[in-house]
Order: sequence, then structure tokens, then C-alpha cells
Amino acid sequence: MRIARFSIDGNVAFGAVEGDPTGSGGPGSFDGLVLDIIKGVPFADFELSGTKVPLDKVRLLPPVLPNKVVAIGRNYAAHAAELGNEVPAAPWAFFKPSTSVIGPGDNIVYPSFSREVHHEAELAVVISRLCREVPRERVKDVILGYTCANDVTARDTQQTEKQWARAKGFDSSCPLGPWIETGIDLAGAADLAITATVNGELRQAGRTGQMINSIEDLIVNITEAMTLLPGDVILTGTPAGVGPLHPGDEVAVTIEGIGTLTNKVISRG
Amino acid sequence: MRIARFSIDGNVAFGAVEGDPTGSGGPGSFDGLVLDIIKGVPFADFELSGTKVPLDKVRLLPPVLPNKVVAIGRNYAAHAAELGNEVPAAPWAFFKPSTSVIGPGDNIVYPSFSREVHHEAELAVVISRLCREVPRERVKDVILGYTCANDVTARDTQQTEKQWARAKGFDSSCPLGPWIETGIDLAGAADLAITATVNGELRQAGRTGQMINSIEDLIVNITEAMTLLPGDVILTGTPAGVGPLHPGDEVAVTIEGIGTLTNKVISRG
Repeated sequence: MRIARFSIDGNVAFGAVEGDPTGSGGPGSFDGLVLDIIKGVPFADFELSGTKVPLDKVRLLPPVLPNKVVAIGRNYAAHAAELGNEVPAAPWAFFKPSTSVIGPGDNIVYPSFSREVHHEAELAVVISRLCREVPRERVKDVILGYTCANDVTARDTQQTEKQWARAKGFDSSCPLGPWIETGIDLAGAADLAITATVNGELRQAGRTGQMINSIEDLIVNITEAMTLLPGDVILTGTPAGVGPLHPGDEVAVTIEGIGTLTNKVISRG
Repeated sequence: MRIARFSIDGNVAFGAVEGDPTGSGGPGSFDGLVLDIIKGVPFADFELSGTKVPLDKVRLLPPVLPNKVVAIGRNYAAHAAELGNEVPAAPWAFFKPSTSVIGPGDNIVYPSFSREVHHEAELAVVISRLCREVPRERVKDVILGYTCANDVTARDTQQTEKQWARAKGFDSSCPLGPWIETGIDLAGAADLAITATVNGELRQAGRTGQMINSIEDLIVNITEAMTLLPGDVILTGTPAGVGPLHPGDEVAVTIEGIGTLTNKVISRG
């Protein structure tokens, strides 16, 4: 199931997406898709209401509003190499704050302190329940599903400030969406293509199976330290091919079997 | 005014602390203090109810439940030097998650992955309102008040994991309290003694006036990048004298004119 979060007439709701997102309108198009409104929230047992609205009549929101986003640096060897970095012995975890999260179609706003903002296409894991010290064999039980993320990074600031709260935590630096796919077993054997395009040109291309630390590794490692809450998000690192974004650009992150997350880049107004 | 947050009979409320906290019971004692329960929340205009409860009849909670805690590395020159580090050209900001926050009297639980957990006494700034790109002359308008914090750090993990989400973000690594002091102008000229004791022995002693980046500097720098929300907390760095904590220790952070935050250290049960 694909679960979207949206607003319509000032109300916010979750809905199950029906239809084929790779249909008539090309990649990233929502043509012909319909939302079956969910009663309540998708973090517990829920029912579909049967009330349906066309997706192009609503505003899609980030599919979840996380309390925290835990992100991982250098989790694809080819990306570490392209920035001249070694692969760390253990995962390097950092946070992106809730205030950095935007949804599909929202604008990435260039921060005033950077001249070099980069895209980083990433697979995002959405947590379903409060959990801590999750054993490897229980990891699947704490995952609601997966969505696309862009770990937008002020690369110049990242070089000068050795902790990345500003470089990777500025407002609009965490696009998430377009929806949560619950039907994939990425904590198991799935290996999906992940790409980023800028203005339609391919920039990043990798496969989730190239991660150095698997999703099980990451959730065991993170929850050894901290409690995760329903709706918290794990970003799993970016493959090679990161590069600059400029005002006016349109950046799209696509993950096979999940969907396409598209955002425009604008300058501060 | 000193604003505490507490639970009584399963309900959570804010209250104004009345009485002299440096009274009969010695440092850190709450003997004889009374709470006048606040109607509503202290982030907008509020009234006191006139209903009073003795502080020793309630459980004090963290004085605020922040959406995010933004902390600053190496903001006192003597502390940077004691760890053999240079003072950075610009503040290094990192996040501690909401799940790391505990209150006065709560236990600091040694994480399973560390053998060297350190105390770091810090002045904490509590934000009063949603704000972004705060001009220097408006910084005072976004501050509700000040409290004591302990930026508890797994020092060994901090060395091996170059981003500090686990080293400084584990559950119970952010004690805050005992209350918010709203009557001090630390964004102005105030210069207060800050100390940490372990089992009554003095370990850290500094003055808030020794900060490299002032509170104005920090709030301008942070809000250049990100929106702060009511209740968000800024940790302003630790003075020299950090050192290890062991299970069984009692650590107390005292800031002149604010109060004393005391926590016990325990091993994982």
C-alpha cells in the first residue's frame, strides 16, 4: 500500500493511493491517481473510509511529520570516494530537525550562508512504533514503510562547520515523499534502483543493495542509543553522483517501486 | 520568575516557584518551595491560578519538552584546550533529540556502547516563540528564560563517530532543569558562575561571560539556518573541567541565580 498525507480544504489526512503512478503523465506525474481517505493514522490498525479524492485536487504534504530524522553519512562506498573520504568503521549518525522537512512539490530555499547546495538522493525508512534496543530479527516489526528523501546539503558549510546542524539542518533541507510504500521488504532482500535527476538530467544512480550498513544494521545501531518514535525517519545515505543545485533547478529523487519526489530550488525571496 | 513543569496525580502542569531555593536544605534542595499553578502554558500571556502545592509533593519534569535542542561545541576556550582542540572559526552546532531530555532527579543511564561518559555543565536558553532570521537587537524577544543543562557525552564514542548523534543523543543524555528563570538578562551583561560537582566535589567552574560566541551570536547564527519553535532549547557550550561519570555518581550543575540540576548515574538494569 502507498500511504500519502495531504491537506484538503484546510484539513490534514492520510490516504491510500490508488492507480498506477508510472501511468500516463510520465515519471513523477500524479495523473489519474486517487486517494482513499484513511480513518485515523497509519501507525496503528486502520481502515479505509471508502471516500475517494483525486490526488490532483489535494496538496500532498510530507508523508509523515517526524519528531526526529536520523541520517547516516558515507553509507555508499562510491559516494565516500567521490568526496575523497574514507568509509567509517561504524555508521556516522546525525540529525535533521523536524523544521527541515518539506513535502513533494515544496520549494528548497537556498540558505543565505551557502553558495554550494547539493542534492543527495536517499532511501528513507519510516518507523511505525516506539522502539529501543531493537534486536536484528525484530527490525521489520518497527518499519511502517519507505519513501524517497533528499538529504539537501550546504556542501561549503559542511566543510567549515565540522558538526552539520546548519549544513544539513536548514529549513527545507529534508524533502520527503511522495508517499510511504508499505509493501516492500527492504530490510530483507530487496535491491532497488535509486536515482536523482536535475532538470531531467541523470546525476545520481545507485542501488539500495550497495549500502555499507544495511537497514537492519542501522536500526540496531541507532536504537542501541536512542528511542525511536512512531513517524521518526531514518535516512540511509546517498550513492555517488552528488552535485550542485541552483535556483530555478528542479530536482527529482526516484526509487524503484516507491515513486518520485520532485522539488524546485528557489533563492531567498 | 522561576517556572517549573511538574506532574501531580497524573496531570502535567507549569507552576511559578515561590520561596528561596538556597534556603534550609543546602544547594539543590527544594525544601520549603511552593508552586503556584499556571493557567495554560508559559509561551504566551498567562495567569497564576493562586492554587499552590508544595514542591516536595510533586514530581518535577524537564521544565520544557523541546522539539529540538541545538547545542554548540567548543564555546569556552579553556574547554577546547583541555581536550586538545582548536577553537573553531564559527560555532559548531549539533542536535540533541527530544528523546534525550530528562528532568531534575531523573537518572542518567549509562549507554551500552560507552565506557567513558562525561558531564558537561551548560547554560540552556529556552525559546519563547516561533522565530527565524532573528536580528541581533531582537534576540531578547525570543528568549523565555534560562535553565541548567548537562550535555552528557559518551567521550569514547565521540572520538570514533565523527558525527555525534549517538555520543551526545542517547536517551537521558540531556538533563534540563530544575526550572526556567525568566528574570535574568543573559543576552545582555549578566555574567554568572556555572559549576559542576560530582558527589559534592567541584569538577567544573566557569563563568557564562567566558563564552566565545555570546547568546546573541548563537541565536543569530542558528536562526540564519533554521526556524526555532516555542520550547526549543539552545545549549551554549561547557567550561573547562569535564570528566567521567560512573554508575552511582550524583552530578549537579549549578548556575548562579538560576538553581541546581541534580541527577544520578545508573548502569543499564
